[in-house]
Amino acid sequence: MITDNRPLGVFDSGIGGLTVVHALRRLLPGENIVYLGDTARVPYGTKSHGTIERYTLQAGALLQRYDPKLLIIACNTASAHGLPALQAASPVPVVGVIEPGAEAASKADGAVGVIGTIATVQSGAYEAAILARAPGKAVHSAACPLLVGLAEEGWLDDPITVEVCRRYLAVLPEEVRTVVLGCTHYPVLKASLEQARPGTRWIDSGEVTARTVGSLLGASLGFHGEGRGRLRILLTDAGSRLQEVGGRFLEEPLESLEVVDL
Amino acid sequence: MITDNRPLGVFDSGIGGLTVVHALRRLLPGENIVYLGDTARVPYGTKSHGTIERYTLQAGALLQRYDPKLLIIACNTASAHGLPALQAASPVPVVGVIEPGAEAASKADGAVGVIGTIATVQSGAYEAAILARAPGKAVHSAACPLLVGLAEEGWLDDPITVEVCRRYLAVLPEEVRTVVLGCTHYPVLKASLEQARPGTRWIDSGEVTARTVGSLLGASLGFHGEGRGRLRILLTDAGSRLQEVGGRFLEEPLESLEVVDL
Repeated sequence: MITDNRPLGVFDSGIGGLTVVHALRRLLPGENIVYLGDTARVPYGTKSHGTIERYTLQAGALLQRYDPKLLIIACNTASAHGLPALQAASPVPVVGVIEPGAEAASKADGAVGVIGTIATVQSGAYEAAILARAPGKAVHSAACPLLVGLAEEGWLDDPITVEVCRRYLAVLPEEVRTVVLGCTHYPVLKASLEQARPGTRWIDSGEVTARTVGSLLGASLGFHGEGRGRLRILLTDAGSRLQEVGGRFLEEPLESLEVVDL
Repeated sequence: MITDNRPLGVFDSGIGGLTVVHALRRLLPGENIVYLGDTARVPYGTKSHGTIERYTLQAGALLQRYDPKLLIIACNTASAHGLPALQAASPVPVVGVIEPGAEAASKADGAVGVIGTIATVQSGAYEAAILARAPGKAVHSAACPLLVGLAEEGWLDDPITVEVCRRYLAVLPEEVRTVVLGCTHYPVLKASLEQARPGTRWIDSGEVTARTVGSLLGASLGFHGEGRGRLRILLTDAGSRLQEVGGRFLEEPLESLEVVDL
């Protein structure tokens, strides 16, 4: 087995991407990870294409200083708007969360749904990536701007969240039985989403991305040798509730946070 | 009457400050206004003190180019964290939204409440400003992070919003009959707030700030001469729904938007 102890560089607009780190650490526990959350400028979901692309390139350049073997854009909005630019600029491979999510969705039976931020939905990135794999597939999207706030508030399994989910999901036709969680915040809301639309199969883009990363490491890049990998968390701003909220997404305590300039 | 045709410079982290512009234009229709919304970096409510202070100084420097007679920080978070620094740096007077709101609250009967973002509530700025005017007054605060999202979503008079307000307002003791809307987004939610806590007197910090500005102009700075003042709107990023959402806060159509770098 090839070994390569260089870290995985993970980038998100904020701390939602810690759900992807959680999936990575469960599937690939030995990997060292450097996580960069642009908490000073979060959210990206309401910003324009050019701004998101510029921020993504800045984040990639900063992570490059940590000598990563692979970059992961653990943010749907930044993947939708910044992936091609970062792939062109980066000396190491870059994986976004959209392609793996679209791959899983393209194999589902029948019509599929995609939920995400306004920017992700308006980019049409999931739709394009699903249709490239399954031409003619019916794809229905719904922007759900309030879900990020509900996840950060910790109202995870909560009648208000169920009601908000129900309203957003109502725009998806009844025949949609598979829905991509096209925002890294959403996995923690799964209990409420399930109550709002029982019997749906939810595709967690973090989970499928972790599997893609695992395949890449196995095929060419190499795994980290042994033991439990180290997790470094860099943030562009350390607000007051980040530790509490971030821990909820990571599903382990957030120990050391470093504040960096971007 | 002194006249001074220089504009009022109004700054907000986003577009919520347009409720303050609305109040200014109703009370002082002749004034020219240059509004700067830092939509690329909104929201400030989850950011740290140093970051908010730095952003506020940058905004003040940009507005200075338009030769204003007065600067208004139409953002509670930026007022709580950036007002002293901007007052020290600015060659023209600077008014925040907290002092006028606190002044009105200090004159209310009995205990008062303050609702706002996490950063505003944690700053303790309202409490300090109210206690400076009414020593010993009981002041109770509640952070309401989801209300900005609900206002931007346009769920203004809505059962979900009523339920969210009810949950947030439940932390205020029953004897509180006066509540300061310590976030410029909140005035548009008044119908839901009223259903959540009937019989409450709501102090709209934008409205009382407009009155403070009117007094300052009358006492020394001078009003604009005649006619309907011009409104220029500068934003650091023009996302897709800004025109729709901003128009709701301004209560008039958002005509020309200019994108500027900050």
